[in-house]
Amino acid sequence: VSEAPSPLTTITFLSDYGLDDEFVGVVRSVLRSIARHAEVVDLTHGIPPHDVRAGALCLARAAQYLNPGVVLAVVDPGVGTERRAIAVEVGGGQSYLVGPDNGLLAPAVSMVGGADRAVALTNEAYQLPAPGPTFAGRDVFAPAAAHLANGVDLYELGDPVDPMTLLPGVLPVPSPTADGLAAEVLWVDRYGNAQLNVGADDLDGWGDRVGLRWGTDERRTARRAGAYDDLRGGDVGLVVDSYGLESVVVPRGSAAATLGLAAGDEVHLVRYDDDEPGSDGVVVPVELQRRR
Amino acid sequence: VSEAPSPLTTITFLSDYGLDDEFVGVVRSVLRSIARHAEVVDLTHGIPPHDVRAGALCLARAAQYLNPGVVLAVVDPGVGTERRAIAVEVGGGQSYLVGPDNGLLAPAVSMVGGADRAVALTNEAYQLPAPGPTFAGRDVFAPAAAHLANGVDLYELGDPVDPMTLLPGVLPVPSPTADGLAAEVLWVDRYGNAQLNVGADDLDGWGDRVGLRWGTDERRTARRAGAYDDLRGGDVGLVVDSYGLESVVVPRGSAAATLGLAAGDEVHLVRYDDDEPGSDGVVVPVELQRRR
Amino acid sequence: VSEAPSPLTTITFLSDYGLDDEFVGVVRSVLRSIARHAEVVDLTHGIPPHDVRAGALCLARAAQYLNPGVVLAVVDPGVGTERRAIAVEVGGGQSYLVGPDNGLLAPAVSMVGGADRAVALTNEAYQLPAPGPTFAGRDVFAPAAAHLANGVDLYELGDPVDPMTLLPGVLPVPSPTADGLAAEVLWVDRYGNAQLNVGADDLDGWGDRVGLRWGTDERRTARRAGAYDDLRGGDVGLVVDSYGLESVVVPRGSAAATLGLAAGDEVHLVRYDDDEPGSDGVVVPVELQRRR
Repeated sequence: VSEAPSPLTTITFLSDYGLDDEFVGVVRSVLRSIARHAEVVDLTHGIPPHDVRAGALCLARAAQYLNPGVVLAVVDPGVGTERRAIAVEVGGGQSYLVGPDNGLLAPAVSMVGGADRAVALTNEAYQLPAPGPTFAGRDVFAPAAAHLANGVDLYELGDPVDPMTLLPGVLPVPSPTADGLAAEVLWVDRYGNAQLNVGADDLDGWGDRVGLRWGTDERRTARRAGAYDDLRGGDVGLVVDSYGLESVVVPRGSAAATLGLAAGDEVHLVRYDDDEPGSDGVVVPVELQRRR
Repeated sequence: VSEAPSPLTTITFLSDYGLDDEFVGVVRSVLRSIARHAEVVDLTHGIPPHDVRAGALCLARAAQYLNPGVVLAVVDPGVGTERRAIAVEVGGGQSYLVGPDNGLLAPAVSMVGGADRAVALTNEAYQLPAPGPTFAGRDVFAPAAAHLANGVDLYELGDPVDPMTLLPGVLPVPSPTADGLAAEVLWVDRYGNAQLNVGADDLDGWGDRVGLRWGTDERRTARRAGAYDDLRGGDVGLVVDSYGLESVVVPRGSAAATLGLAAGDEVHLVRYDDDEPGSDGVVVPVELQRRR
Repeated sequence: VSEAPSPLTTITFLSDYGLDDEFVGVVRSVLRSIARHAEVVDLTHGIPPHDVRAGALCLARAAQYLNPGVVLAVVDPGVGTERRAIAVEVGGGQSYLVGPDNGLLAPAVSMVGGADRAVALTNEAYQLPAPGPTFAGRDVFAPAAAHLANGVDLYELGDPVDPMTLLPGVLPVPSPTADGLAAEVLWVDRYGNAQLNVGADDLDGWGDRVGLRWGTDERRTARRAGAYDDLRGGDVGLVVDSYGLESVVVPRGSAAATLGLAAGDEVHLVRYDDDEPGSDGVVVPVELQRRR
């Protein structure tokens, strides 16, 4: 302790708290009461309630853009039960992630090189006294994040945990099929774009048109395009999105609403042998207007 | 004026402005233009439009966690009429609350020990010129909050007001009945938990099961539990929430949606004489699945 | 470079990103990674997706209240196409506006005195490498805004553009009719107030009551009032709003919902010759209750 570690100046905060209640404001007040110097950057609080998978994917998408410091992430359907509250050190102490041990943090931890050290947040000296057991964000996670931002050593916060025992996240990978790839919708964004778990290079050598099959018996042909507005009205497109993943889009409209796609849905991508329209017997391009 | 008061560094901001319009951003810009040094912490702007009671309860729930400084609270259906705009000093000048005199501030003021001094915000030298009378948050309340954060004395902002004349808030208390308590839903949070105006100690000596009666003829038996996930699917639970109040919950679901409860609804709690299932003739535990 | 320009301390941020995805948080992280000293003030992110007109009007309403510095505005349906990304200097270098050249910035630029200089953001040295072309807010606009806040000269960011060639915004003006004014709903706010493109002085000499005609055959008489609560239940009012424009209101209710008005709707204002009730044969005052 001859030399205090330099404090971390950014706390990035993600949750499923929404913004209609005072949860986010109370957590920010707690953070500020302990770590006045730190700036809190809200990543989002619009994760659907209890949707750990959506929170984990959101955190992973953002990970490479976040400021070094502390990430506070709370999507915690098991609050008050046996699930562990944890803090994880990454990047040789450059950053920490704080949250429940339910897979929420795992994809982001993995993206930044894996965990160096981890603890269960068991030291009540670094927690707020709780009138009830249900607001761990306020009483357990926020104080831990703020103390880490102040330079408190990770091992002060509780019992060391073997990072290998942390609950892994589930990132679905596409699987090859006889005529293409079985993919999954990872995320539907505000504009209705449906991001697939398919990287641009997974479609290397495919043509300009790709068949889509989903649901009971839905079929469309998607045009691969560089930008939303390169598509014409009525088109369904496949665009490499800002995270490098293939996304199903409809120009100036919601692909999710138009096609009936939601996060978690399976989508089969069918590779066309050549690019002649109609050369594929299975997937027939149909104008949007005519389907309706 | 030989020694300037030290400026306050936090302005906590609550309103019913929502986040879709520019109201919050404009108020924050005004705060920043006057009190550059102060950090604004948004408590929430999701109070339902004009719902003074919801805003007052939200502020009271959060009060003990807020940073010392200025609280700016605007839920103001009477803007532009005779209702007073006020600022209230609490905690011996440690904090101030600024808002309309319509009961919005009263429960929080009471929770932190009552008002020391109060003024009506009548000094136009500390207001913005207004093109119209309807945005007092921007033109009257925000400037007052920012000037208080700068160390301007309360009495500079307008005419002193006897704190006893401020409109009191209404915090409903449960009333005893022949077989239990008549309670009220104070708040339904994002997860659908329905907070009652019943403290944990109000149920001292009650058993593990409590009857609920509400609406025209709705009845259920609730199990008292320590955490949401201690309940089984189909259960209705009573959990002491993070504010120390009894909350009606459904594990991994919305109690409000399942049971048809909303803020302000009356709920009767029926005390069971013993804990034998079925010993109470009035309230029969029924599996959720079988009711539907 | 003998004397560095003093950095700008405020970045005001408006978008149609919503708050449910991580877009806003990622952009703020990028801003902070480049311009640590600057504070970001969110104006709103609730502009309807791709609604350039709504974003432009919002920015214009707020313009006079914003802190000097950089305005980052992103409503960008043409992202990834030929539309230019631009930065505009106003007020002799006191402020900059950064966004797409699609009319979004134009009304605000005009309100603060017009553009001094402008550039197309073509210098990739001041951009982030992009995995895909669709998140210009993160990869192009945010870095430009942050570098401007750091004092980088506008012309470093790309090719100079003649401000006269920037896409103008469209601010509809009311037009006189035989019996009054043809107006338009500019904006419906959270409370359901419908702001018209009619200034208070456009109604100079009109009486206390004004006829409204809209839709196929809808007619009501509005009472002009100083504040919402000066109206009685069932009234429709015309109130000069906080921006100095006439707004159609219903006391403690939503005028938009009650009357079926939306942004962009045409509304005819009919001038009454005198104020005797019923003196006008066309517009008959009807109690709200009796219409329903």
